[in-house]
Amino acid sequence: MTRNKQIRLASRPSGWVTTDNFTVTEESLTDPEDGELLIKNIFMSVDPYMRGRMNDVKSYIPPFQVGEVLQAGMIGEVAVSRNKDYAEGDIVFGMLGWETFSVSDGMGLSKIPKTSAPLSYHLGILGMPGMTAYVGLHKIGRAKPGETVFVSAASGGVGSIVGQLAKLHGCRVAGCASTDAKVAMLRDKFGYDAAFNYRNSTCLLTSLREICPDGIDIDFENVGGEIFEAALWSMRPNGRVVMCGMISNYNDDELQPGPRGMMSIIGKNLTIQGFIVTNYPEASMEYVKKASSWLEDGTLEYHETIAEGIENAPLAFIGMLKGNNIGKQIVRIADI
Amino acid sequence: MTRNKQIRLASRPSGWVTTDNFTVTEESLTDPEDGELLIKNIFMSVDPYMRGRMNDVKSYIPPFQVGEVLQAGMIGEVAVSRNKDYAEGDIVFGMLGWETFSVSDGMGLSKIPKTSAPLSYHLGILGMPGMTAYVGLHKIGRAKPGETVFVSAASGGVGSIVGQLAKLHGCRVAGCASTDAKVAMLRDKFGYDAAFNYRNSTCLLTSLREICPDGIDIDFENVGGEIFEAALWSMRPNGRVVMCGMISNYNDDELQPGPRGMMSIIGKNLTIQGFIVTNYPEASMEYVKKASSWLEDGTLEYHETIAEGIENAPLAFIGMLKGNNIGKQIVRIADI
Repeated sequence: MTRNKQIRLASRPSGWVTTDNFTVTEESLTDPEDGELLIKNIFMSVDPYMRGRMNDVKSYIPPFQVGEVLQAGMIGEVAVSRNKDYAEGDIVFGMLGWETFSVSDGMGLSKIPKTSAPLSYHLGILGMPGMTAYVGLHKIGRAKPGETVFVSAASGGVGSIVGQLAKLHGCRVAGCASTDAKVAMLRDKFGYDAAFNYRNSTCLLTSLREICPDGIDIDFENVGGEIFEAALWSMRPNGRVVMCGMISNYNDDELQPGPRGMMSIIGKNLTIQGFIVTNYPEASMEYVKKASSWLEDGTLEYHETIAEGIENAPLAFIGMLKGNNIGKQIVRIADI
Repeated sequence: MTRNKQIRLASRPSGWVTTDNFTVTEESLTDPEDGELLIKNIFMSVDPYMRGRMNDVKSYIPPFQVGEVLQAGMIGEVAVSRNKDYAEGDIVFGMLGWETFSVSDGMGLSKIPKTSAPLSYHLGILGMPGMTAYVGLHKIGRAKPGETVFVSAASGGVGSIVGQLAKLHGCRVAGCASTDAKVAMLRDKFGYDAAFNYRNSTCLLTSLREICPDGIDIDFENVGGEIFEAALWSMRPNGRVVMCGMISNYNDDELQPGPRGMMSIIGKNLTIQGFIVTNYPEASMEYVKKASSWLEDGTLEYHETIAEGIENAPLAFIGMLKGNNIGKQIVRIADI
């Protein structure tokens, strides 16, 4: 009989996440009750924000609980339905467990329409990372053609989309990444005008000035820490910092100080703005429509790093935090 | 014969400004040439931003030069006019020297209309500090009735006005200041709902939570440093930080780090925004109209700290940086 394999939070990480923080358990499948559905999970989204949920800190989403199955954005197929809104064979997206099968009452699920795009794209370029790139660039950054956009973690799930959207909008785009291979990909595949490997840089500020000689109008910030400081120091007057992520700080045991020289926020008339993409449903829908046709006609490029099997989800997550992925990191749990 | 007494920058301060950084010189008055006017200076504005101009750093206003006469917002009376746009006896405002008499070609000067308000008010509540309070609160902070506004340096030239404007708008207003006398004044004169003396506080975060138990919607930031960090940690979701000043950092020899925990900008959907008040001329004019009538009917309170004589301008400036003033710091150079 088929059993459900699940990844649970064994302990809260202090500092860097390790595989010891996870435990794999198995249990027999329970039949869905009236109103519920059983979902066979296919693709799991691996995202930086999950690291925050591993800490016992109140935020816009509640923390994971020790002993409980972890959660992720998930695409699955309805295997058994006792809910009138869903039929067996429907493909759905929802926040579900790190597990091979999930039971849901349908709340918060959405059906994924059949399109020519591969299913997994709905976790990335057609999903939350894509929407985050679009909302961040246009609604928060208010990018204008001709402006210079700098993206940190530029080859990541969000960054690799931001760069392409900014180019489409007529911006100059520069970025940084953690390996020479990623940097090459930024230029050759994702259309970045300039990029550098920050791990090879002896002075981030100098490296940044080389790729953005006239300064930065929009810093699309995914990394935080020293890269954020160098970007802040390179901002042009009236610049905007789109605060999307601070992955360099997610594994810190103690809170790290912010960038030096924040006084420039006043003198240069800067705006630093955080955002939660789910607050922008209209812009998100607008984006998905555009992105679908851009993918069809080849305007947008997309890259995924795929781990195989739910038992590899912890390693995929740790690897993503260390920057091992290129493009969107996902886990394939089952074949469709 | 009348001579012109002037305060020049003797040397750039490293760290705290001292009187050694200034020198007093005297020279004979020169007659204005064709198109020029001679202005007898009456009131000089002493403002925190001047500290930045003493460093050799490019900003939105150029640095003061060693050996040169320092500049300030100044109100004076036209003593001799060889410019058709100005008549003797006109009262004017402009960026003029720290000196008893200034020669100007009229560029950048504005005439001050005769109103019932004391002349010096045009350097404060009816001038740039007032406009800064209004633009910051309404255009940058987008204050809404019922929201909680926290003001640091709350009894200063800008802060004492912000609090009153926020109360008029239906906000709850809390602030901090550096002496018990100032704190009493915040409550009794400027209408603050709650305030604390930050020099007596053993834990700024605790003190802040006592006066803002439900958190802060708008942080009107004049101080920076530890107070900014405590305010950032106390922000409510969707909060705005109006970045007006960082007086705690103006005398730093080295750039200080920003607040710890900037990640909350993302999770709480915060905006940190700097601004330059001269970019908002319409809102500024709108404010001056309102403030004039609010002063007439007693709705707005105003307080000044006045130093006597141009030779005391350096001490007044140093004292203002140390927080010795209550309300707007000015220097009376001559009687009207």
